[in-house]
Amino acid sequence: MTGGAVRWMVDGVEGAALPPLDRGLAYGDGLFETVAWIGGRPRRWVRHMARLAAGCRRLGLPPPDGARLLAEARVLAPAAGDAVVKVVLTRGDGARGYAPAGGVRRIVGVHPWPALPAFAEGASLTVCGTPAAATPALAGLKHLGRLEHVLAAGEVASRGAWEGLMRDPDGWVVSGTRTNLFLVRNGVLWTPELSRSGVWGILRAEVLERARALGIAVRRARIGLEAVRAADELFLTNALVEILPVTRFEERRLEPGPVTRRLAAAVRGGADP
Amino acid sequence: MTGGAVRWMVDGVEGAALPPLDRGLAYGDGLFETVAWIGGRPRRWVRHMARLAAGCRRLGLPPPDGARLLAEARVLAPAAGDAVVKVVLTRGDGARGYAPAGGVRRIVGVHPWPALPAFAEGASLTVCGTPAAATPALAGLKHLGRLEHVLAAGEVASRGAWEGLMRDPDGWVVSGTRTNLFLVRNGVLWTPELSRSGVWGILRAEVLERARALGIAVRRARIGLEAVRAADELFLTNALVEILPVTRFEERRLEPGPVTRRLAAAVRGGADP
Repeated sequence: MTGGAVRWMVDGVEGAALPPLDRGLAYGDGLFETVAWIGGRPRRWVRHMARLAAGCRRLGLPPPDGARLLAEARVLAPAAGDAVVKVVLTRGDGARGYAPAGGVRRIVGVHPWPALPAFAEGASLTVCGTPAAATPALAGLKHLGRLEHVLAAGEVASRGAWEGLMRDPDGWVVSGTRTNLFLVRNGVLWTPELSRSGVWGILRAEVLERARALGIAVRRARIGLEAVRAADELFLTNALVEILPVTRFEERRLEPGPVTRRLAAAVRGGADP
Repeated sequence: MTGGAVRWMVDGVEGAALPPLDRGLAYGDGLFETVAWIGGRPRRWVRHMARLAAGCRRLGLPPPDGARLLAEARVLAPAAGDAVVKVVLTRGDGARGYAPAGGVRRIVGVHPWPALPAFAEGASLTVCGTPAAATPALAGLKHLGRLEHVLAAGEVASRGAWEGLMRDPDGWVVSGTRTNLFLVRNGVLWTPELSRSGVWGILRAEVLERARALGIAVRRARIGLEAVRAADELFLTNALVEILPVTRFEERRLEPGPVTRRLAAAVRGGADP
């Protein structure tokens, strides 16, 4: 459905709307998942639902009903085509005030599959000035408050890059605006540790698993910009691109490297565990 | 309208709803104001609109039309009673993706005036474990992503306190969950500096102005929990309580002090500048 219209259901009702009392709108009080829907099937559905359930536990929301969400996605998404399925859970409607009372509201949206760079082409990566939040309470969660990412994405667009690195307020690299970052140096795979910032991406976890299974040494650590500049290979991950090599970082050009290629082959297609 | 129903307008239409494509819901991409509406009139409307306009500039949103927002509030709010008017601006509907394209959507809601402690009774204040975000890009903004505050407010409610202090990830005091904090020590008025966290409250700014006009020495600084514990006076501010003394902090009982009383008298009623 590339270029097609967006369709959605709110609590199972197609095209329904929300009152402004929804706590997702009022306070960012909710979570979302962005699922690749390829050839009429979701990729990594089990992983997405597991992350969503873990997020619900952290926020005190009831656990998601994955079967119902998938059934709703199947009503809306193409039976044999590609799309992006976005699942949102909010704490439902609430009175004014932060205290977390409410129920839960589910939104399943189906969006056109976006134009993405091919693997060989890779991504151009810039460095954003907008800092990511340091927020241990929310670290890892794909929650609805993404305003730093919005501002950073504005920077990326204005520079004509495909993605931008965000750093935390102390200058440590967190991630791209919509991707996790990996770098390879002397055969070791590094990715930023994300105990105070960032999203614990589905693909990030899968890449770490696959790397270990392939015997590639893995480090999660604080990473500064100089380490990114000194990398032999750089790549980005999310549920839509899976693994996308960085072929331009600031003024430097890079080729997709051997570790990137091995891992990309290992994760491609994302069979559910 | 204490205990009354909530009424709202979305882009001027009473009771209208929003599509889930609204960027306020999707990404917290918007701002809000919480206005005291007393005896049929807004308090500090000019200050609220000035803050909203400043926030719009930072986010690249068009400036708010204060006259239209006020006209809409007048349709919904009691002609002679008290209420809370909540104004929300979002970046309107957008396609999936963080990059900030869109328009603007305005929501004016009228909520019941809440039960608030009397000045003499004051507030009980606890210390939340949930850290506030350190997020220089958003510091000061009353933006829609308030999930840390939601979690902290849950802590406050579970302990039966009225308010809870939030600290940044490095342990510096930021504010209450829905108030700014002031402390008095040896006649000097202190409040946390908020260059990386927190909301630049309307009342916070007004208290700082009034204190200077009254010849009270003022300091904005990094403040640790020990300084709060050592304070002679503690008070909280927001647009609804104006100034509320802290009469219990952790296990300690305090009285509303002389500086708190002077400032409370100075700000009471909030004539617009």
